[in-house]
Amino acid sequence: MGGLSEENIKGVVLALLSSAFIGGSFIIKKKGLKRAAACSGVRAGVGGYAYLLEPLWWIGMITMIAGEAANFVAYAFAPAVLVTPLGALSIIVSATLAHFILKEKLPRLGVLGCVMCIAGSVIIVVHAPRERAIDSVQEIWGMATQPAFLLYVGSVLVLVFILVFHFSPQCGHTNVLVFTGICSLMGSLSVMSVKALGTSLKLTFEGNNQLIYPETWFFLLVVATCVVMQMNYLNKALDTFNTAVVSPIYYVMFTTLTILASVIMFKDWDGQSADNIISEICGFIAVLSGTILLHSTKDFERSSSFGSSYAPVSPTLSTRLCNGNGEFRRDEEDPEPPEDMCMTKQ
Amino acid sequence: MGGLSEENIKGVVLALLSSAFIGGSFIIKKKGLKRAAACSGVRAGVGGYAYLLEPLWWIGMITMIAGEAANFVAYAFAPAVLVTPLGALSIIVSATLAHFILKEKLPRLGVLGCVMCIAGSVIIVVHAPRERAIDSVQEIWGMATQPAFLLYVGSVLVLVFILVFHFSPQCGHTNVLVFTGICSLMGSLSVMSVKALGTSLKLTFEGNNQLIYPETWFFLLVVATCVVMQMNYLNKALDTFNTAVVSPIYYVMFTTLTILASVIMFKDWDGQSADNIISEICGFIAVLSGTILLHSTKDFERSSSFGSSYAPVSPTLSTRLCNGNGEFRRDEEDPEPPEDMCMTKQ
Repeated sequence: MGGLSEENIKGVVLALLSSAFIGGSFIIKKKGLKRAAACSGVRAGVGGYAYLLEPLWWIGMITMIAGEAANFVAYAFAPAVLVTPLGALSIIVSATLAHFILKEKLPRLGVLGCVMCIAGSVIIVVHAPRERAIDSVQEIWGMATQPAFLLYVGSVLVLVFILVFHFSPQCGHTNVLVFTGICSLMGSLSVMSVKALGTSLKLTFEGNNQLIYPETWFFLLVVATCVVMQMNYLNKALDTFNTAVVSPIYYVMFTTLTILASVIMFKDWDGQSADNIISEICGFIAVLSGTILLHSTKDFERSSSFGSSYAPVSPTLSTRLCNGNGEFRRDEEDPEPPEDMCMTKQ
Repeated sequence: MGGLSEENIKGVVLALLSSAFIGGSFIIKKKGLKRAAACSGVRAGVGGYAYLLEPLWWIGMITMIAGEAANFVAYAFAPAVLVTPLGALSIIVSATLAHFILKEKLPRLGVLGCVMCIAGSVIIVVHAPRERAIDSVQEIWGMATQPAFLLYVGSVLVLVFILVFHFSPQCGHTNVLVFTGICSLMGSLSVMSVKALGTSLKLTFEGNNQLIYPETWFFLLVVATCVVMQMNYLNKALDTFNTAVVSPIYYVMFTTLTILASVIMFKDWDGQSADNIISEICGFIAVLSGTILLHSTKDFERSSSFGSSYAPVSPTLSTRLCNGNGEFRRDEEDPEPPEDMCMTKQ
């Protein structure tokens, strides 16, 4: 039985806080964008930058950064197989807040999707493996250079290479799996390096300085490279395809690959009973199904308020940030007239 | 950790067999009804009895009885909290067979519902409590007459009384919860008495004759009474409301109340860890969500082939039997012309 160690509890609390912040930030930014559009008459989607003068938008941005920071720290405390799937909860927070604050109706099947995500998350939390105690960045380096994980990294790089140079030019703009596949593959490496970096920083803050080791700086370089690449292709995917198509596919692939990477690198499932592993997988399937269901409820999709805000179930600051002002991309089709939310300010 | 005792494994296998038989029986009967309609030109829904001359229909009926028998025996081996939720799998079997044999398209969300049901069922099986060893019918009698369970039975009877005499005449034909509520409440008592009777018979077959005790006969009487009542009101519900509305509500209420009754009477959760209980509840929520999703996929509902065949996720022989020939009830609206499946016979 995995149970919850003190470290795991910290990780879960941080992951939940992260989801709450990120989920909430979409709503705050959306309000900010609406206000800005109503006041200036020009929407972000058609080239307006009025939102930059809107304090609400900045509050939303700060909330999102806080959420991303919490997510980053969560990885330093708990295994990726625990933290990553909990990212789905940010969608629930947005959906619920949109229902109550923005008065956007959440359809019945959307509620069912939320219930599934929550049930699945609870199962994952209950059965999560304990985080192994790590004493130095070299220990992580040892994990990252074990043959099994090197094989994983190698396969990922080969696949990405093929996708980028062979499939991207050929069918990148017709097949949604190409760009999202690149993002997801790189995303799994991002999370592993984020976890390595986060753990090193945690050790450093605990007085065990890891900055003197080149491995720490190497992981930082990997984080930067992977995140830039992931960000670039996520934007391509979002520019080419509808968010409602990209998001669930990306979430499913990214989360699955991250769990696979973590199981190989950190041996999360070693020493766990078969019951626990089966339960985790089923809980994970429940979260995935709930996410797909939430995305496929058509009314919800059509409300279009989430625009690209749904994509960012990603592990890293910049990947989410880059979508920050794409929020209104699909709102051009939104028939609803700008509300005069800035009346009080006039 | 509950784990799977030998008795539990027998119970699970029987419950799975039961679901396979019952799920398959709908398809066989449906084929039989189609053939009969095509040959005689009169459908069951409009008063035809040609299906009684159709061997396929009888094979379907026998398969269903075999499934119900397996279900009955499963209750003698494994706890109700394990056997009852697995009933949902019969829906998956029908849906899958309908997809492949009857060529009825299962929509994407229906597939998601199936996946949810399976993931939830696996979690329930992995975490189910062990069946307690019971040596005599008096031991079950002792469980049935403990204050907590008497309180449950008393509450159920009072509620049923109020529903039957106060709400039925007033809003039974406008509110779907009245008739389905009566069925579900009586259903939970049916399962408890079926389990008591099944265990007594199991002991008798093992050489420990329980038929000499009046308690065995009392449980038989309770089974008969509850089942007749449940059957009567399930038919009323199905006559008044659309199957697609009745089935998920009935399944959710009936399964929840049965688990509650079993937890009170057989103390299924005593000695189980909090983790196990939480996992079971989440697994149960996943199964419920999957069932609701399967039922709410509109295309599936409209295909109307399942007619009343979906309702019978019920615990007892006669409750399912009584819907046996109502299969085509909704097929009158089916625009599809009768296929000449009996060509070969002409």
